[in-house]
Amino acid sequence: MIEQVKQYAKTHRDAHLNALDQFLRIESVSTDPTHQEAMTSAASFVRDYLRGIGFDTARIEETAKHPLVFAEYVKDPALKTVLIYGHYDVQPADPYELWTSEPFEPTVREGRLYARGASDDKGQVFMHLVALEAMMKTTGELPLNVKICIEGEEEIGSENLYQRLREKKDQFDADFAIVSDSGMVAEDQPTILYGLKGFTGLEFTVTGPNNDLHSGLYGGAVRNPLMAMSHLLASMKDTDEIVKVEGFYEDVEPLTEFERQLMQAAPSENYQTTLNIPETVSEKGYSAVEHTMGRPTLEVNGLFGGYQGEGTKTIIPEKATAKLTCRLVPGQDPEKIQQLLVDHIESHTPTGVRVTIKREPLSAKAYKVDPDHPLIVQASQSYEKAFNKTAVFVRMGGSIPVVEWIDDIFKIPVVLLGFGTPSDRLHSPNESFPLKNFDLGIETLIDFYMNV
Amino acid sequence: MIEQVKQYAKTHRDAHLNALDQFLRIESVSTDPTHQEAMTSAASFVRDYLRGIGFDTARIEETAKHPLVFAEYVKDPALKTVLIYGHYDVQPADPYELWTSEPFEPTVREGRLYARGASDDKGQVFMHLVALEAMMKTTGELPLNVKICIEGEEEIGSENLYQRLREKKDQFDADFAIVSDSGMVAEDQPTILYGLKGFTGLEFTVTGPNNDLHSGLYGGAVRNPLMAMSHLLASMKDTDEIVKVEGFYEDVEPLTEFERQLMQAAPSENYQTTLNIPETVSEKGYSAVEHTMGRPTLEVNGLFGGYQGEGTKTIIPEKATAKLTCRLVPGQDPEKIQQLLVDHIESHTPTGVRVTIKREPLSAKAYKVDPDHPLIVQASQSYEKAFNKTAVFVRMGGSIPVVEWIDDIFKIPVVLLGFGTPSDRLHSPNESFPLKNFDLGIETLIDFYMNV
Repeated sequence: MIEQVKQYAKTHRDAHLNALDQFLRIESVSTDPTHQEAMTSAASFVRDYLRGIGFDTARIEETAKHPLVFAEYVKDPALKTVLIYGHYDVQPADPYELWTSEPFEPTVREGRLYARGASDDKGQVFMHLVALEAMMKTTGELPLNVKICIEGEEEIGSENLYQRLREKKDQFDADFAIVSDSGMVAEDQPTILYGLKGFTGLEFTVTGPNNDLHSGLYGGAVRNPLMAMSHLLASMKDTDEIVKVEGFYEDVEPLTEFERQLMQAAPSENYQTTLNIPETVSEKGYSAVEHTMGRPTLEVNGLFGGYQGEGTKTIIPEKATAKLTCRLVPGQDPEKIQQLLVDHIESHTPTGVRVTIKREPLSAKAYKVDPDHPLIVQASQSYEKAFNKTAVFVRMGGSIPVVEWIDDIFKIPVVLLGFGTPSDRLHSPNESFPLKNFDLGIETLIDFYMNV
Repeated sequence: MIEQVKQYAKTHRDAHLNALDQFLRIESVSTDPTHQEAMTSAASFVRDYLRGIGFDTARIEETAKHPLVFAEYVKDPALKTVLIYGHYDVQPADPYELWTSEPFEPTVREGRLYARGASDDKGQVFMHLVALEAMMKTTGELPLNVKICIEGEEEIGSENLYQRLREKKDQFDADFAIVSDSGMVAEDQPTILYGLKGFTGLEFTVTGPNNDLHSGLYGGAVRNPLMAMSHLLASMKDTDEIVKVEGFYEDVEPLTEFERQLMQAAPSENYQTTLNIPETVSEKGYSAVEHTMGRPTLEVNGLFGGYQGEGTKTIIPEKATAKLTCRLVPGQDPEKIQQLLVDHIESHTPTGVRVTIKREPLSAKAYKVDPDHPLIVQASQSYEKAFNKTAVFVRMGGSIPVVEWIDDIFKIPVVLLGFGTPSDRLHSPNESFPLKNFDLGIETLIDFYMNV
């Protein structure tokens, strides 16, 4: 039966690509207030497509900003229920002049579909619609209960989604979730993303004298805020890349030997070449890949104070500011880590200066699902069958807030099944998506839905 | 005879203030190319005044930018020759709206003469002219040979003066120099400035990846340039304010117990109050005043890299830049210190990043004259007699390049006899000069010239 379902997708490929073309033509740029109508059109497209393939419950739900599409299909309450998440909003397309073809006029060149949203995330959302359609049209039903949430604010922080998920917990509740809003570590390399990092951060300012001072008349009498800031930052992480903030590693779930093997087995970027750095630098005892995927980080994102112009200005500046964020791993609590950072800064501030701290209000716990979890095993098998290659299992150093929220609110596993490739140029001009992955991805999804 | 000379100055006070009024009305703003005519007028004023009081040789010398006034009076080649230095150019007067009276319409209020240049340096230059006039008119001659150099580019870096002094060494050569372009540490406190700091500097940039990176995807694989910069800076000076650059203190002339007593005896600013700092911080083993006046410093004047906007941007920035300057004391060679800084930076750069260094081309050696030098002793005595108060002896943490050049080119002592006060608001709106200091300063100069 699976083969017939997959055959349906192949037979109707042209119709599907035509429909996707319509979807991609809608300029659903969520950050641009003049595109409100396009946002509604894109949401309507998704709702109508779902109704068209047999979802009786498929509706647009207004939020304080952009609407989300909710749909539901209950086959048998006793069966498993999946929550499919995706987003129909896209990044702005400018600078337009760097696009080879128009961003909202989808074009195929050398097997790739070029358009804003082709990969992130309309193209991948649409693959789920096709998989669902193929099952409905071939077997007359879906193999499990399905809830669908396609939002319109992912590119601007999903500010209304988190609230909605918490307030309408029952409406969105499911046994597991599936998200295709990510990619594969290399073209043709099935990739199971089974963990994401959390984060927390803060900004702090070291203040010395009440204005910039003449470095000759006052140098030697006052603490230089820039030097005080350097001492403070240097006290937070040593040159072995080990964070020295007391308690920082206390709750870190250690990397198992099995996970370290998985991470080393995944093909990875040659950092030295792609980034033009003399060498990689990672926490002592861990490789760059292990540190990036599985160990917490502390990074200075911005640092400034004093004179920035040409030449020399001999001042002692009145203040220095640093912006810090940490990427967290399972076990670490963002609020606790933020407090440890505050404590460290306050207790390590040199004499002669004052420090003020602004805590970053957004934070997230890390997400991780056991790579041996039956859902993950099933995902990898479906993936491998379609792409004819063994899947790799990786954790990502980045954060996908919605995944962390689903984990936090519903306590259900999230299957991250992404089909993008490193060449997709998300958020940049000439975004594209390989049609091969469109086809094989749909096969993967059909196989997964029918076997899970 | 001295008393008669001083009496001359008193008797002709109104005429002198009228002449000074004319001098101050000339808008000799050296930085403003539209004021070229005013520059020539100011130079002419000085030349004509000198001719009027009996200088046969008094001329305007053109330079590549603004002219300088040179005058010469040879009484007897066997006698001592003094070189009097000053400048007739002034800082721009804007913002005009913050002036209580017009900057180029001199006004007396509560014993102070308000005008741009009243203190820095036309007012003080004019005091020398009056002292010379009083001696000439009273005794028919000057008590020593005099050379005068009043330039027009002090406020813009004296770019042509240094070259002229070197090229025409014989023309300007003297046995000692006198400069009144500074002030007293407190109103009514005769202040002998017997030392200035030298300086050197550089700017350096720590470069990591070839563009800003996503802190989640790359954090743990690359060295963060901002953190590398913090480690580098922290390695250069510890929290005891001791510079850790190897060899930095090697040639430093130590502070004698006598000098430390002089420095402690001078009234000084209450830094905590005036600067609003929790406490002063100085090199371990030295007080703030001792460090500022007599010990070398290393200061970060500017530091920047990464995101500086509102909120959070989770990047690892591609680079970080710092601007450094050192104030040097006698014994230290600016070029050697600059090389030590370069060596330190290069040898302490953490792995994984590259560093590029831009050496600041301007540098200066420190200047110091023995506080027991007969010229200095004479200056303090003349000062004390006029102001009826014991003089304090201080060194200044700042640099006055012309003093360091005179020292370097002519190897002669420079007497820094300044009559400005901390309330003069040099370079700011409402610049002023106390008329009391105009009177007592002229007395001091007369006494000095006639006794030296």
